[in-house]
Amino acid sequence: MNATSAEYDEEHLRRLRLVRAMIQVGEVPVATVREVLGHVDDDGLGRTIRLGAALWALPQVPEPDQDDEHVRAARQEVAAPLDRLGRRNSEQLTTLSPAYRSLVVAVAAFRRLGYDWGAELLAPYAELMHRTAVLDLDNMERYPSQAERVEFAVLGAILDEPVLRALHRPAQEEESARRYGFE
Amino acid sequence: MNATSAEYDEEHLRRLRLVRAMIQVGEVPVATVREVLGHVDDDGLGRTIRLGAALWALPQVPEPDQDDEHVRAARQEVAAPLDRLGRRNSEQLTTLSPAYRSLVVAVAAFRRLGYDWGAELLAPYAELMHRTAVLDLDNMERYPSQAERVEFAVLGAILDEPVLRALHRPAQEEESARRYGFE
Repeated sequence: MNATSAEYDEEHLRRLRLVRAMIQVGEVPVATVREVLGHVDDDGLGRTIRLGAALWALPQVPEPDQDDEHVRAARQEVAAPLDRLGRRNSEQLTTLSPAYRSLVVAVAAFRRLGYDWGAELLAPYAELMHRTAVLDLDNMERYPSQAERVEFAVLGAILDEPVLRALHRPAQEEESARRYGFE
Repeated sequence: MNATSAEYDEEHLRRLRLVRAMIQVGEVPVATVREVLGHVDDDGLGRTIRLGAALWALPQVPEPDQDDEHVRAARQEVAAPLDRLGRRNSEQLTTLSPAYRSLVVAVAAFRRLGYDWGAELLAPYAELMHRTAVLDLDNMERYPSQAERVEFAVLGAILDEPVLRALHRPAQEEESARRYGFE
């Protein structure tokens, strides 16, 4: 086997792995997988846009009802913690971003249930999630090529969440045991 | 309306809110809702156990295949980061805990795809999730009664995840824009 075909095999294997993760772990529809890969492979785009486009193509929450009072309140409450994180950089993305939409939907759900989750409670969580994002990008940068990095980011979007959630719950148990013991 | 019936109404409203969150937001089956509420109301149990029992009754990932090599490797890799967080306190819970099981399943999924996610990569995420858990319990302690606290913890288990996920993605966008701009 010559170097070129070994390289091809390596690339092929990586791609297969990504497709399997999207379909089997992320339950992403095949048409969406194709769309995501289109963005992953589009090296005519800048890095942030390419990364964003690939992630934005993944299944997202639907647009919330603009006339709902809880949605309007949530929209105001999430602005401050995002600004505090220095939303300057990605401000041009924010209103388009499905991630921003998910945040509004989640906060509106708390508020609809009568919990006044707002800017003050969200700010320290936003700070911790920013540190998490720094770790994510540090890990991504361990990969040498742009193609591998975008692929790793897509995998991360699918697999990180189960890992974070799975680390969060034992941490709650541990903290509860630390504070209250087993009395 | 006298004080007693006002108190009853307040309690009734809170309970209704919890049931709605479980069914509408968490898509928890009605039989499970009943089981969770049984633990929430069981003030014969200690706090950590009561909290744990309520959360453990929520839908969880199935037991992973013990003979799978990736599951065995994942089990070894998650031990170290959990120990470092001082698993001393909740050690007696760990092997029973569905959260621990989810962690093994998630790490095994990464490893099956050829990513050697292990102790070293997990440790800083475990640390951040521990800080998140400290915030969760601080917020929980703002509520005066044991009943309200356990209810808030159950709501948190259902609603926190969408909020954390929704804060995580914009943080990634922001960090990407900060590092790479839009070139």
